[in-house]
Amino acid sequence: MGKTLAEKIFDAHLKDEPFEGTKVLSLDRVLCHEITTPVAIADLEWRGKDRVFDKDKIKVVIDHVTPAKDSKTATQALILREWARRHDIPDFFDVGRNGVCHAIFPEKGYIRPGFTVIMGDSHTCTHGAFGAFAAGVGTTDLEVGILKGVCSFREPKSLRVNLNGSLPQGVFAKDVILYVIGQLGVNGATDRVIEFRGPIVDQMSMEARMTLCNMAIEAGGTSGVCMPDMTTVEYLWPFIQDEFASKEAALEEYSKWISDDDASYDKVVDIDVSSMEPMVTFDYKPDCVKTVPEMAGTKVDQIYIGSCTNGRIEDLREAAAVLKGKTVADSVRGIVSPATPKIFQEALAEGIIQVFMDAGFCVTNPTCGACLGMSNGVLAEGEVCASTTNRNFSGRMGKGGMVHLMSPATAAATAITGVITDARTL
Amino acid sequence: MGKTLAEKIFDAHLKDEPFEGTKVLSLDRVLCHEITTPVAIADLEWRGKDRVFDKDKIKVVIDHVTPAKDSKTATQALILREWARRHDIPDFFDVGRNGVCHAIFPEKGYIRPGFTVIMGDSHTCTHGAFGAFAAGVGTTDLEVGILKGVCSFREPKSLRVNLNGSLPQGVFAKDVILYVIGQLGVNGATDRVIEFRGPIVDQMSMEARMTLCNMAIEAGGTSGVCMPDMTTVEYLWPFIQDEFASKEAALEEYSKWISDDDASYDKVVDIDVSSMEPMVTFDYKPDCVKTVPEMAGTKVDQIYIGSCTNGRIEDLREAAAVLKGKTVADSVRGIVSPATPKIFQEALAEGIIQVFMDAGFCVTNPTCGACLGMSNGVLAEGEVCASTTNRNFSGRMGKGGMVHLMSPATAAATAITGVITDARTL
Repeated sequence: MGKTLAEKIFDAHLKDEPFEGTKVLSLDRVLCHEITTPVAIADLEWRGKDRVFDKDKIKVVIDHVTPAKDSKTATQALILREWARRHDIPDFFDVGRNGVCHAIFPEKGYIRPGFTVIMGDSHTCTHGAFGAFAAGVGTTDLEVGILKGVCSFREPKSLRVNLNGSLPQGVFAKDVILYVIGQLGVNGATDRVIEFRGPIVDQMSMEARMTLCNMAIEAGGTSGVCMPDMTTVEYLWPFIQDEFASKEAALEEYSKWISDDDASYDKVVDIDVSSMEPMVTFDYKPDCVKTVPEMAGTKVDQIYIGSCTNGRIEDLREAAAVLKGKTVADSVRGIVSPATPKIFQEALAEGIIQVFMDAGFCVTNPTCGACLGMSNGVLAEGEVCASTTNRNFSGRMGKGGMVHLMSPATAAATAITGVITDARTL
Repeated sequence: MGKTLAEKIFDAHLKDEPFEGTKVLSLDRVLCHEITTPVAIADLEWRGKDRVFDKDKIKVVIDHVTPAKDSKTATQALILREWARRHDIPDFFDVGRNGVCHAIFPEKGYIRPGFTVIMGDSHTCTHGAFGAFAAGVGTTDLEVGILKGVCSFREPKSLRVNLNGSLPQGVFAKDVILYVIGQLGVNGATDRVIEFRGPIVDQMSMEARMTLCNMAIEAGGTSGVCMPDMTTVEYLWPFIQDEFASKEAALEEYSKWISDDDASYDKVVDIDVSSMEPMVTFDYKPDCVKTVPEMAGTKVDQIYIGSCTNGRIEDLREAAAVLKGKTVADSVRGIVSPATPKIFQEALAEGIIQVFMDAGFCVTNPTCGACLGMSNGVLAEGEVCASTTNRNFSGRMGKGGMVHLMSPATAAATAITGVITDARTL
């Protein structure tokens, strides 16, 4: 019987199986940020094991609260900075060179098909867009990963989501994933790898695939994955051109990670996107979704465009296309956080930053801050945010605040009117 | 006997003198931000006096922590926002339209020669650059100002600082004011208005004059003032052109605020700037100044360019001229905060934002944050910051941190090398 991409990666990385079904995998990437890593560092120091398994496989960024908002976050950044310097980790991104982890690490070409990737961050599943097995882990697993370059997993079953049909104008990857989560439910993919398949995925850019995979965790998924293809190769080409004689050669190599046709799935879900509408969440769980027309007119206080879900250049373009020549309603405030310095500079060059500023948006430096209520856009009690982020949990963006998740286009349209608005109607 | 500018303003605004020497002045401007005003609002509400004396004379901005970094600052912003809306205050600058108070209010043309201006902020003296009497006040005074449009002052004596000679290349207004504070001492101008006079001031732009007046408080001064002249008129012209037949007519009107030649001063200090060098602070008081060559080589961790002292377009130009084509040293991080959206957009148009980003600077949205250790660049224990701000008090930018105040040019040069550096030597 054939194997899934996840099974192939598990086979190729298996180091040990100490208990039936518990697999110890070698790691290709251990990603680190300043919120969860300092705890791991402190414990390693306390144990007299302040070492790293491979300084070239560890990638480090300060992204959650940057620049530091107080002494505590300054200290977290300092611990990470001194650790990266102490171990001579070459790929450490400090203030000014830093961006949202799940945007900057792919952008730097660190993720490849077939890789195993861990990070002490829920949305590590984003990197599955490259055909990698990427999972968020707790600090103890992170610590073992840093020291030994391994991590234990129960081998997950795969759940296949076939996205068929053709995507209507004004409906984006974010709408698709919100719809999928609505179908699966927040526990629908627990301990499963979600394979995003079908012609819709094939046509998607890497950015859009990252948006899909990013939110796999919101349906409980251990990871989300897309099959590597020529789009993957094109994205990675600047980083791999010395490794392969041609893009076709790279594609052939990476194709070994594609799930076999006769692989076995825990579940297969077929979705025709052809009549899909822009989606938005209500309530406090990501599977509480309605169409934007159903929610249209809902008053908001703040609009946030950014995060590892939707802070990439395509997202900013999508929002700017709606915003161009318009202004943010007086009743609301707009905040946009380009996810990395490169994205910020691309947006500068394309005039997108100008569009946002002309519209009255606050353009922040790259940071995760607002998405998880840690900085740069925290809500007050009773406030409502239209947001391109990934979690609408109660208090996620500030205690007593309400978050409606949506696409950048919907967020931009909402900024203009001050109420949830279908961008197609503007 | 003639009168000083301050005496003329006091005479023209005198409403009452309940006690000998205590003068109640009518106010032309009551400026508000989200840190000190909510306390005043809460007390007015508690007293059943939730009113404003004149909604057109009150100008309101969220600037200290913006966008909000936590629930507390989100609530402060919310209180200010709801108050501004409740009283229909037209000039309220919310997230995205907001900037550092002492940069955005002059930029909007709100300050005129002869005005009385108060704010619950130490650096309100900045507005004296327009020939206004502008003073930082406590929350009780702010509250009375909001309700009644008056404020009590003991009439301050004036201290005249004549700046003569010619400013050497590479020496800027920031260097001059640091030198002056070094000469006067941190208590040298207590309860005094510092009049900045002489050919050097006459040649200065409004931006440079604001830098001078901004730090009057650091020598203990109640306010700093410059005499209104054609430079003042030119700056204000877009806002006053309907009031006057010509710039000359405006100048004639504003000239009535110029101190009389035979006015009496508490003290006159003559300074020849011709051999002045770039200045920098050491230790924890703003009068602890040395020349940059004396301090050259001092290691720093962070460079901050921004604030009401030096976050204006001239400051960014000055720093960018040094930075262009260079990069921030690996050992440090650079942060720049353009002081207002307009300054940010001018810097965009002039390619200055690009220069900062190419150099590896973090470009934040307009905010006061880092200057007072409240957000966007707080130092960890033991860290050192080269900063264009106004206070090097112990812990100002973060508990246990050290701040060296300097000009934007020196800060830029320091960013490149990682140690305090004379920009003229690069």
